[in-house]
Amino acid sequence: MTGGAGATRYAERLDRAAVVAGEAGLGALLATPGPDLLYLTGHAPPPLERLTLLVVAPGRGPVLLVPLLERPAALASPAADRIEVLGWADGEDPYTVAAELLPPGPLAVTDQTWASHVLGLQEAAADRTFVAAGRAMPPLRAVKDEWELAALAKAASAADAAFADIVLVTFAGRREADVSADLADTLRRHGHQVVDFTVVGSGPNGTSPHHEAGERVIAKGEAVVMDFGGHLDGYCSDITRTVFVEQQPEEFDRVHDVVRRAQQAAFEAVRPGVPAEDVDRAARDVIDDAGYGEWFIHRTGHGIGLEIHEPPYIVAGNATKLEAGMTFSIEPGIYLPGRFGARIEDIVAVTDDGAVRLNEAPREPLAVR
Amino acid sequence: MTGGAGATRYAERLDRAAVVAGEAGLGALLATPGPDLLYLTGHAPPPLERLTLLVVAPGRGPVLLVPLLERPAALASPAADRIEVLGWADGEDPYTVAAELLPPGPLAVTDQTWASHVLGLQEAAADRTFVAAGRAMPPLRAVKDEWELAALAKAASAADAAFADIVLVTFAGRREADVSADLADTLRRHGHQVVDFTVVGSGPNGTSPHHEAGERVIAKGEAVVMDFGGHLDGYCSDITRTVFVEQQPEEFDRVHDVVRRAQQAAFEAVRPGVPAEDVDRAARDVIDDAGYGEWFIHRTGHGIGLEIHEPPYIVAGNATKLEAGMTFSIEPGIYLPGRFGARIEDIVAVTDDGAVRLNEAPREPLAVR
Repeated sequence: MTGGAGATRYAERLDRAAVVAGEAGLGALLATPGPDLLYLTGHAPPPLERLTLLVVAPGRGPVLLVPLLERPAALASPAADRIEVLGWADGEDPYTVAAELLPPGPLAVTDQTWASHVLGLQEAAADRTFVAAGRAMPPLRAVKDEWELAALAKAASAADAAFADIVLVTFAGRREADVSADLADTLRRHGHQVVDFTVVGSGPNGTSPHHEAGERVIAKGEAVVMDFGGHLDGYCSDITRTVFVEQQPEEFDRVHDVVRRAQQAAFEAVRPGVPAEDVDRAARDVIDDAGYGEWFIHRTGHGIGLEIHEPPYIVAGNATKLEAGMTFSIEPGIYLPGRFGARIEDIVAVTDDGAVRLNEAPREPLAVR
Repeated sequence: MTGGAGATRYAERLDRAAVVAGEAGLGALLATPGPDLLYLTGHAPPPLERLTLLVVAPGRGPVLLVPLLERPAALASPAADRIEVLGWADGEDPYTVAAELLPPGPLAVTDQTWASHVLGLQEAAADRTFVAAGRAMPPLRAVKDEWELAALAKAASAADAAFADIVLVTFAGRREADVSADLADTLRRHGHQVVDFTVVGSGPNGTSPHHEAGERVIAKGEAVVMDFGGHLDGYCSDITRTVFVEQQPEEFDRVHDVVRRAQQAAFEAVRPGVPAEDVDRAARDVIDDAGYGEWFIHRTGHGIGLEIHEPPYIVAGNATKLEAGMTFSIEPGIYLPGRFGARIEDIVAVTDDGAVRLNEAPREPLAVR
């Protein structure tokens, strides 16, 4: 789970998190099990009803409060020698114990902390203000280092390889669920340890961007949206391609071409200093100009790293300036109700000169059988 | 994901949730993606940064607010015809939209709701009080119906079958991670769609109850704690057995016997009306009396169903009275620092007459090679 990051890396990340929290006027960053805890410490216990809480405060050493039975595992984690590890026992109130560890000032809680924990902390430390880290401080994980970029490129290449395999299977006459299972197999075969989603949306089902593959039997002459990804060595893949079964449905060629041009326009809009929302705008303008604006019903993309969705979000209203090392999806789509959808998604990385694509699977509309 | 539960089942559950929330003096139960939403509606979108919120209020029909792009999937879910499904668009503030849907009175949020969502709701509806559902109202999912009991029994039997297979593999000279991978394979072979954990703790690693299987090479003469489980047709398995490699380490026989008697004592303490903490006490008394109390460092068990850990918790301080249909683990353990651990865990179901075990794998200490 630690993805090869060494103890020094975690020490640097912990130091940086404390500085960033301080600069944001926060008393501390509080992290519970999940991607932030993993990123900061290399420790990856499952998120559970028992409180595990990392307190990263400017000017103090980090403290990790864990259920007593998980203390040995915490002490064996990569950053353990940089962290004071405290245990609480079953039967104790962990929130009362945690309240003693909280410095003054507003406290940022990682976004995925469970409500039971944040409400428990609010009650035990009623004089404190709790805020969501995602809103109260800049994202810690948005700018990737070289090692992380390599991990994301590897995951993307594996997803590309899965796409190259899946276009060879039979679609016509099989259920979406069957193709979805094939996709999961091929993702695993190409090195993914975890398969997170394998959307297969045929015909009208392709107009539901997060459609769950089901019993629908795919027919000749239909478009099929495939959006799939998972975890490879701790980092995520996420790719979408839209194919057609032998023959293109009416208007598909035109719609797919608009999506492809929108995706390219967004790609070309990426460079350091550009607000995230401008990349969304670039894709949206192409689709609006082509007269399909009404049917592009979602944002253009999302950051990716340890999580499939993380900052920066490529969406109207997000003025975050892009920086070299940020990684995100560019995935415009058009969804014609009752007919078909078309979406093209690549993961890109921001460089000093613009963007590079981590996915290289063909973007032209491919025929499958 | 719906586990065969039909639309009528969801209608009944939604009605019951509204009644229970009302009886608890709550304005509404708010559920985000996770086991409660799945239980109430059959809808299982992934928990993400975009707000999905089910509002179940006494005297009103349930309302589900979803990201616009997930509205088609929500409308296709089993309970959709019983729920008003509203969409919010990327770029809108979902918390402002949600605030309009909230009735007066304290609002219970399902325990696993993300902090970003609960803090967003607190800000948008600053005149409301938010409480954790797990503390503010009785658990909705603790008492299982016949169909759920059958699903849990099936998952338990599959875990038993995995244990029967794993004791036939070679342990001596192999890494914990290798045996752990074998365990995952055999769980899948016996029908698990998801493998959630395969703890293999050999020798001193067995003293860390949530040890992650690692590089340690297992040796002859060592005890090995194996705690494994996953999801089968949506319901969870969770079993622990402790074996030894050819020869028992010193004192193992005695320790294992104490654990086994403690597990049996807890099992025999189960019947409707008994407080959960009494079952914990029954196991703890046996271990205390044998002089190992200091080394039994966790609660005796946890409920199980759609989640691996859910109410009722079998722990000191939990006065919840057991009811027929509740299902939970009984898993006492003894952990001798630097030496070995021993734990035996079965899933049991409360019946009118006492408890029945859903796991039937042998509980005597087995030798492996």
